[in-house]
Amino acid sequence: MSIIVQKYGGTSIGTIEKISLVADKIIKEINNGNQVVVVVSAMSGETNRLLGIAKSIDNKISGRELDMLISTGEQVTISLLAMTLNKKGHRAISLTGSQAGILTDNAHNKARIESINNSVIKNYLSDGNIVVVAGFQGVTEEGEITTLGRGGSDTSAVAISVALDAKECQIYTDVDGVYTTDPRLSPGAKKINQITTEEMLELSSQGSKVLQPRAVEFAGKYDIGIRVLSTFEDGSGTLVKKENDLQMEKAIISGIAFNKDEAQLTIRGVPDQPGIASLILGPIAKLNIDVDMIVQNVGEDGLANFTFTVPRNDYENAKKSLIESSEKLNAKKVEGNNQIVKISMVGVGMRTHPGIASKMFSVLAENEINISMISTSEIKISIVTDENNLKTAIDVLHKAFNLEK
Amino acid sequence: MSIIVQKYGGTSIGTIEKISLVADKIIKEINNGNQVVVVVSAMSGETNRLLGIAKSIDNKISGRELDMLISTGEQVTISLLAMTLNKKGHRAISLTGSQAGILTDNAHNKARIESINNSVIKNYLSDGNIVVVAGFQGVTEEGEITTLGRGGSDTSAVAISVALDAKECQIYTDVDGVYTTDPRLSPGAKKINQITTEEMLELSSQGSKVLQPRAVEFAGKYDIGIRVLSTFEDGSGTLVKKENDLQMEKAIISGIAFNKDEAQLTIRGVPDQPGIASLILGPIAKLNIDVDMIVQNVGEDGLANFTFTVPRNDYENAKKSLIESSEKLNAKKVEGNNQIVKISMVGVGMRTHPGIASKMFSVLAENEINISMISTSEIKISIVTDENNLKTAIDVLHKAFNLEK
Repeated sequence: MSIIVQKYGGTSIGTIEKISLVADKIIKEINNGNQVVVVVSAMSGETNRLLGIAKSIDNKISGRELDMLISTGEQVTISLLAMTLNKKGHRAISLTGSQAGILTDNAHNKARIESINNSVIKNYLSDGNIVVVAGFQGVTEEGEITTLGRGGSDTSAVAISVALDAKECQIYTDVDGVYTTDPRLSPGAKKINQITTEEMLELSSQGSKVLQPRAVEFAGKYDIGIRVLSTFEDGSGTLVKKENDLQMEKAIISGIAFNKDEAQLTIRGVPDQPGIASLILGPIAKLNIDVDMIVQNVGEDGLANFTFTVPRNDYENAKKSLIESSEKLNAKKVEGNNQIVKISMVGVGMRTHPGIASKMFSVLAENEINISMISTSEIKISIVTDENNLKTAIDVLHKAFNLEK
Repeated sequence: MSIIVQKYGGTSIGTIEKISLVADKIIKEINNGNQVVVVVSAMSGETNRLLGIAKSIDNKISGRELDMLISTGEQVTISLLAMTLNKKGHRAISLTGSQAGILTDNAHNKARIESINNSVIKNYLSDGNIVVVAGFQGVTEEGEITTLGRGGSDTSAVAISVALDAKECQIYTDVDGVYTTDPRLSPGAKKINQITTEEMLELSSQGSKVLQPRAVEFAGKYDIGIRVLSTFEDGSGTLVKKENDLQMEKAIISGIAFNKDEAQLTIRGVPDQPGIASLILGPIAKLNIDVDMIVQNVGEDGLANFTFTVPRNDYENAKKSLIESSEKLNAKKVEGNNQIVKISMVGVGMRTHPGIASKMFSVLAENEINISMISTSEIKISIVTDENNLKTAIDVLHKAFNLEK
């Protein structure tokens, strides 16, 4: 008898009718002879509704009390799902993060899972229960309720899969798998049957919203297979697994991700000396602004140009801080653009196919798409361009790298 | 420094604006130099909303999963109140029933508090916090979430007062105290300044909705004073305390309660023999129907008549069961009336004033109010009459016993 962990997100359980559909999917897996642990999020919209109430009290609310509030969202869904399974004649028991033994650090609102005491879930499974666990939440050693941050339910599901040595971690969502690029933007986008954890990690962190990067990282670290599936359609979805475990299809490029939520800042003519990066980025980090891409190159007269991207929401604050730094550093000037998009091509095949980057650049050039920033990793090339170029860039790259086949 | 426990019900904290008013009331008590523990219910309507969702899954839902669901109601309000207190510059911490150490038995949906580990609350108080505790809920030794049943927040507040040896347990509600009878029915109703625990217990169990009987019982047992106060008006409210602790005003009758939610059933001509009561009431109890008043008297030929009241909702089921029993017992017939009301006069003065019952009956007779059932205790006389008589009966009794003065 194998253990299957299934995770259903907010849109999959947004109504009583959908919860009933989910229950049927779970029962199907039980009838296949498996033991099932289900991880659920709050009903879609519920976390935002609770956040809205909290913000009407204090616009900058955070910390312990916020976790106390929003953790109720999953507590509602676990009980409703367990009731539904009971009503359909199956033994089911709901567990909060705390009851399920999901121990986290005490970083409220963005806690990290430290360990899972798997005996509670295992005992309920051996007693013949379907175990329904609240995702997104845990408990500190002192008994404080914590949440893992947005999308944390994926991480909960993977961590529980690891703790139970599950056969597979199935993440149910409103799409039927991972695509070569966003199908809403590019009608030629194709579903990927198998993808390596590393590629998935790059796609997730580059803007593909299907899986949370933290969950993918976790799965990779502990060698757990994740299968992305649709709640509302049948199909085999996309299997995300370590490279060695996969019968790879040898695609050079797995997918193209993009992120429209970024803005670009440049400081020009900075004296090129040790420590310059931290002098520029230190004040930005103090404002709690995440810096994504960073590019530095040397200009004329030993003066460096330094370019980086930040979330678009933080653009004005980051720019203000950068202007202050530029005065202290005697830099020549600060420039910015919040109408950009980042496009990333991801594929383990890049390692063995050196011409990918230059092919990417020439395809974009032929289509008169100007590149303002480039950054590469072992299995990823990211470029920044004007956001008006997004659709054309995705289409021509998708075609040039044969992703439609 | 004294500890004050305050309890706010659902209507007192039904909106963010009301929560802000409640926070101001709490801060006033802090500024008086007291330590404050606040017990809150769910926002008004929330428990019913959650119950409605559960019933759309399973109309007969009960037990563990229901507690998991509805306990989220208080978890939302404790966090919102703590946030509001924080925003107003005061240290506050919210605790679920489980975190507050409220240990109950495992009778889901109607659990009883077994003990409270007061060290958690005490530590937070000594650290200078206002402690906000979820009422109505607790936890079993095994870590299961339980609820205490409707109105259980009053019981939580009293139990916490006992555990902390609080100076006073203040129950805030939408009325400014306990009245001699329902002011909505009788404009002459007067607020009572002080009432004994025993009288309050009789009034509560006879239909006065201000305090939960279980909470009053608990307070009496451990000699804790309860003060009933209005959330929205200033005033000294009504103090409920043990008889010996009160400077009593020597009123013979404290108040008149009534209950419109009852129905009456009679079985006539039952052979008067030992065990007859349990033969009649046993099948009713098996249907989980609460029997309230019970009267048995002997009729002609050694045959007894047996009359009792049940909640009006259960009238049809109880009647059906009684008809079945009447066939087995060879009784003459079964009669019923679900258009009745129970009226109870309560007062410790009855003990020393023997003429109260006969005065009550003659006042009712003078006003042509027919009595179909009578039951007395040491400090209470209850009668049953047609529900059309309710207003007249209350008015004439209120006047005859000088409750308006």
